Amino acid sequence: MTRQMRLGVFVQAAGHHVSAWKLPDAESGGENFDLIRRIAQTAERGRFDLLFMADGLTSELDAHPSTIVRLEPLALLSALAMTTTHLGLASTASTTYSEPFHIARVFASLDHLSHGRAAWNVVTTSYARSAANFNRGSHPEHDLRYEIADEFVEICKGLWDSWSDGAFVQNKATGVFADPARMHVLDHKGTHFSVKGPLNVSRPPQGHPVIIQAGSSEPGQELAAKSADIVFTAQGDLVEGQEFYRSLKSKLAKNGRQPESLHVMPGVFPIIGRDRTEADAHYRRLLELTDLPGALALLSDRLGHDMRKYELDGPLPDLPLSDQLRSRAELLTALARRENLTVRQLALHAGMARGHRVIQGDPVQIADQLEEWFVGGAADGFNIMPPWFPTQFDLFVDHVVPELQRRGLFRREYEGTTLRENLGLARPPNRFEAG
Amino acid sequence: MTRQMRLGVFVQAAGHHVSAWKLPDAESGGENFDLIRRIAQTAERGRFDLLFMADGLTSELDAHPSTIVRLEPLALLSALAMTTTHLGLASTASTTYSEPFHIARVFASLDHLSHGRAAWNVVTTSYARSAANFNRGSHPEHDLRYEIADEFVEICKGLWDSWSDGAFVQNKATGVFADPARMHVLDHKGTHFSVKGPLNVSRPPQGHPVIIQAGSSEPGQELAAKSADIVFTAQGDLVEGQEFYRSLKSKLAKNGRQPESLHVMPGVFPIIGRDRTEADAHYRRLLELTDLPGALALLSDRLGHDMRKYELDGPLPDLPLSDQLRSRAELLTALARRENLTVRQLALHAGMARGHRVIQGDPVQIADQLEEWFVGGAADGFNIMPPWFPTQFDLFVDHVVPELQRRGLFRREYEGTTLRENLGLARPPNRFEAG
Repeated sequence: MTRQMRLGVFVQAAGHHVSAWKLPDAESGGENFDLIRRIAQTAERGRFDLLFMADGLTSELDAHPSTIVRLEPLALLSALAMTTTHLGLASTASTTYSEPFHIARVFASLDHLSHGRAAWNVVTTSYARSAANFNRGSHPEHDLRYEIADEFVEICKGLWDSWSDGAFVQNKATGVFADPARMHVLDHKGTHFSVKGPLNVSRPPQGHPVIIQAGSSEPGQELAAKSADIVFTAQGDLVEGQEFYRSLKSKLAKNGRQPESLHVMPGVFPIIGRDRTEADAHYRRLLELTDLPGALALLSDRLGHDMRKYELDGPLPDLPLSDQLRSRAELLTALARRENLTVRQLALHAGMARGHRVIQGDPVQIADQLEEWFVGGAADGFNIMPPWFPTQFDLFVDHVVPELQRRGLFRREYEGTTLRENLGLARPPNRFEAG
Repeated sequence: MTRQMRLGVFVQAAGHHVSAWKLPDAESGGENFDLIRRIAQTAERGRFDLLFMADGLTSELDAHPSTIVRLEPLALLSALAMTTTHLGLASTASTTYSEPFHIARVFASLDHLSHGRAAWNVVTTSYARSAANFNRGSHPEHDLRYEIADEFVEICKGLWDSWSDGAFVQNKATGVFADPARMHVLDHKGTHFSVKGPLNVSRPPQGHPVIIQAGSSEPGQELAAKSADIVFTAQGDLVEGQEFYRSLKSKLAKNGRQPESLHVMPGVFPIIGRDRTEADAHYRRLLELTDLPGALALLSDRLGHDMRKYELDGPLPDLPLSDQLRSRAELLTALARRENLTVRQLALHAGMARGHRVIQGDPVQIADQLEEWFVGGAADGFNIMPPWFPTQFDLFVDHVVPELQRRGLFRREYEGTTLRENLGLARPPNRFEAG
């Protein structure tokens, strides 16, 4: 079979565009479970690999309306496990503001509840303001956060191996409930964590839930090459996308991994019309609708500098690279330089897809633009970020997916039952068992 | 209407008796979601107020078979929110090994997902061995744990008030998504925690999820009188039950509360037969089935001393009161003294219901024993702990519940849609709003 494209839907329940919730056909609300449940069912009808929920640990009034309030994603995905059957269920969880034992436990539980469909997007939490909600005096700096994340993920993988498959024999005749020989104590003592184990959840159906990584900085790439199954990224330009793809895949060999063992899935914001004219009109309408303060807040978060202080119609000033969302700041700065954007224009761009690739057109043109990156060495698939829900996502599933299927680029039926099976990824062996 | 009994089902998926999982009609496994889903549906058919999941933060091979591995309870209850419509969904979460922002967030999310059915059993985590899984050098001592818990619960209540009702106006015409005047920043700076807020979840349907408390020690009672809606307890004897009930209710007035605002629900382990002879036979069969090492492990945990070191057929030695499960140790020690039990007999008793009240008989006799405590000033309801699942719980719902209904002691239909409404408890006002 030809190489197949991977598709995820990135759910921000008020839409990805900062102000699209105001459109007549937009439904909104980060806590709108009924909408999210319908999106998940649509994604499954479209044979999507996964549904992805981002997360954040603060509430900001001037933030994106999808993120002011939202349902805690592990609770949300556990609920969605009951209302879907094949869709991968992916969520962000922070390695800076949580404990490895807890994170290993909840993702293992989600993997059991969903019969092998859990995925964890490992993030280090970018925003220093999170510290104030978690009883911390300060937020660790960028490289230290990645050092902590590296150890954190290794502990979780070790905890998931706490029990061999079949450890819970539950033999009524012999009275043996659990087989002691199949229990393994991790006993981790590292630089940042001490975690004894064993985990109080049996080995997940997938062995380890799928690991996603989203940072594109150098430490982010090193962590991904070591431990991720999927990388979410945000290049807006084909050449940048190809460079990132090549750079990341080249780091796999030294970790003993094959190129196919890691899927690169850039975020894509598709503006779909029945024809190009309608798509272009949607694009202009989104620009008009944009609340500039919200767009400036999004841009400020990504650049790590308060952009309200600068001349709106002047060029992007030279600013020191922040510690916050380092790789995203680099991508947005490069874009502004390349296209000579003013602060206002860059804010309008950030309000659209927060720096992710924006494409527009009719369903065939959307498929063309996905295929270009997929065959051009820039992507193994895409994390689809609909401008608003549900109508723009319905168009994608009802018109773009069939076009990709006609081209032989995307599945017509799920290949397996677990997310790993559908992604063509092996179930990891248990580190405590002889190879 | 006459005062109504409250009923919860305490789910340990391998049954509450330490060895009942070996019975032919027992289903088992702490991760057996299909069984737990059916138990929840049975509870709802029986018009139970709530289903309760305990929790623990370690895995021990010699522990109760329901607790070696288990699904993380918030993930589990979020799934059950999808498969039930009226049942309260209650879970333990620790104030010693978690963060107030996280706990406030997940219970608020569960309350939204379940449309107002979430309940949090506040525990301080008894077992020092938990520290080793959470990167802590040592486990805080008993009274300090309660001091931390007190502050922790107050922060959660404050965070739940972060947004007034209706704060998310989402007015497409005016472009106002959230009303700034209805956002409230807690800005807590206390002895053990600094938490800024606001919470990134809107106010829960119940205002605050129902708060349960289970420690019966003096600090436990003070915390409960201040902040709990329900108290789970473990008196085995009517006089003890009456004393506890009176003591706890007497502490409410100084907190400005009415006696009816807190429901005392002792754990009860009912062994049900078609007649008394069959119930007695079940009781003897459970004693015979008991794995003594497992029962001794349960007893050791509750007394806070390794009981394998003592003469099995000698009297319970005089042991210093441990810091671990202080009130449970007192109850079990009092029982052993009163009934002259040997270590073996006390272990068999602990293997039965871990110190909770054991009753047996046909459905009418079970109802009699519940009514005795309910009308005798020892209980407002009961947390039912079936010896094994599903058959013993099916008997309770199909035969004991109708008997209680005939006596006018228990509802035939749910009174409301939220757990607070069904429990007859008011929705707490928002602390940030004028009274």
